[in-house]
Amino acid sequence: MDDKLTAAMRAAIAGSDAVRGTTSPNPPVGCVILDADGNQVGVGATQPPGGSHAEVMALVDAGTKARGGTAVVTLEPCAHHGRTPPCTRALIAAGVKTVVFAVADPNPAAAGGRTVLTEAGVTVESGLLADEVERGPLRAWLHYARTGRPHVTWKYAATLDGRVAAADGTSRWISSPASRAQVHDLRRRIDAIVAGRGTILADDSALTARDADGTTADRQPLRVVVGTGDLPEGARVLDDAAETLHLRTREPSEVLAALGERGVVDVLLEGGPTLAGAFVQAGAVDRVLAYVAPTLLGDGPVALGASGVSTITGAHRFRVEGVTMCGPDVRISAVPDRN
Amino acid sequence: MDDKLTAAMRAAIAGSDAVRGTTSPNPPVGCVILDADGNQVGVGATQPPGGSHAEVMALVDAGTKARGGTAVVTLEPCAHHGRTPPCTRALIAAGVKTVVFAVADPNPAAAGGRTVLTEAGVTVESGLLADEVERGPLRAWLHYARTGRPHVTWKYAATLDGRVAAADGTSRWISSPASRAQVHDLRRRIDAIVAGRGTILADDSALTARDADGTTADRQPLRVVVGTGDLPEGARVLDDAAETLHLRTREPSEVLAALGERGVVDVLLEGGPTLAGAFVQAGAVDRVLAYVAPTLLGDGPVALGASGVSTITGAHRFRVEGVTMCGPDVRISAVPDRN
Repeated sequence: MDDKLTAAMRAAIAGSDAVRGTTSPNPPVGCVILDADGNQVGVGATQPPGGSHAEVMALVDAGTKARGGTAVVTLEPCAHHGRTPPCTRALIAAGVKTVVFAVADPNPAAAGGRTVLTEAGVTVESGLLADEVERGPLRAWLHYARTGRPHVTWKYAATLDGRVAAADGTSRWISSPASRAQVHDLRRRIDAIVAGRGTILADDSALTARDADGTTADRQPLRVVVGTGDLPEGARVLDDAAETLHLRTREPSEVLAALGERGVVDVLLEGGPTLAGAFVQAGAVDRVLAYVAPTLLGDGPVALGASGVSTITGAHRFRVEGVTMCGPDVRISAVPDRN
Repeated sequence: MDDKLTAAMRAAIAGSDAVRGTTSPNPPVGCVILDADGNQVGVGATQPPGGSHAEVMALVDAGTKARGGTAVVTLEPCAHHGRTPPCTRALIAAGVKTVVFAVADPNPAAAGGRTVLTEAGVTVESGLLADEVERGPLRAWLHYARTGRPHVTWKYAATLDGRVAAADGTSRWISSPASRAQVHDLRRRIDAIVAGRGTILADDSALTARDADGTTADRQPLRVVVGTGDLPEGARVLDDAAETLHLRTREPSEVLAALGERGVVDVLLEGGPTLAGAFVQAGAVDRVLAYVAPTLLGDGPVALGASGVSTITGAHRFRVEGVTMCGPDVRISAVPDRN
């Protein structure tokens, strides 16, 4: 049964991953229903805000086969009545005997799901693949639920010697096709891309998610340009490929407050160096995602501008949580080291 | 028997590794003798110049048990008479039945070992763990034998954003104790450390190999300071911990020619940015060894200075051959991409 539960949680995680970027401010949850014999009979994931939660989708998929079965879900089922009725009620009504969830809900309003289920005679277990869920599809939402602030991933592509462009400003392409494809896939799954006005002026970036052949993806994140000056007419970021928000501030806290109000949970910060420096200085970078290409330039701009550090002991400290190859490039993921 | 041969080659590689830095301009070779039943009965490694080669050391260790046995050696046994008699003759005289070597000798004067052995009725096989040997203990010497030029590893420690020091010049310690220990271990096993005069003026570097407690290691590489001006009196690099060579040039080709003449095969280039840029521009960096600490500075000097690149298509291209964690740091090893 343990193997079946783990397989079901992996399927729930995959379902959760598939709806990333479409559920905010709700969490992208995945749920799998097993019948009494442990067979997968239903699967579901969170619908866009106002739609059903993952548990309800999976129960509908399973129908009467859920009776006496097990619900495997990435997040503790909610016990509160928001825009939709509580999931605990649906699970109990369907006759589910056991609920296995990965991560507890840190949101006081939604919490208590475990208690409600237990009191109704449902067996509840938790913690299965919790690490994968916390570092994976629910990372941004858990951060948002715990801090009230959107989660910020600062992504950049640089050479081995730390340059993001050559001396003449050319930067196409520092990173490999494999890395660029991965970044576009990431863009499709986040809520908003943030870039400084300087980057728009310099590169006329479109800030869209595109497929390998250059066509814009079906789903696009909110494009956010940060800076006090106007945007040039005809800038690609002003086209109708996606919505664009121009925030006339450079204060990270103001940017994040404005985005949080719009229900943005998962933010990808893509530069440039000045804006990235301000976010790092403000402690507002929750993850660094660096694509390091094995090339050397010896000249040209670097990824990170002033971040308030003048001496080595003041360095902003992170912890490497993963290093992988992405084509010929090295991809380093690091999170703040709070120790 | 295959397992026994592989185990023997690993032991030969370990023996080879242990004498790195003591054999130049000769290769640091390791040899293991198996008796007729496949038991390890002798082990040896190249002695300092003028001393015995690995095969002779291993044969002496094995004594009469070598008769009818197998010699497992990292490099093709030499067939020429240099300062010592040819190893092929010793192997034949000892009655060895089979010779297994990893890598062929690219040196025309020494080559022909396979032919001599075969003609004497010895069975010869080659290629076992060749990759490990080529990328490991014989890397520098094979490069030297093929190109006539010392092998240069450019090593640096930088933050994730590419800085080698903070804005005020402080850099202790960018990298972790684990990375520093690894670098000191590397220093003990190379022939020469090269640094620019600017680095000496700025940091008063000792350029010695030290243990974790700060004591200087038994074996020290040649210290080489490159630059036209004088060295300050009392500089640590002028102490008697190791020999120091001051080359009054900044031309990589002149530096390498001078070192090659002294029998230096394996060079560790440790900075600073200007000198590293000149070596990269000259195509004289055969390996990049980057220790990337998961910290951000946003200001301060970077690892690599001007290297003759003005636009992105001119970038110096490398290929990642290994990424490992070294304590909290990411260690990236890259070699020139000649494609």
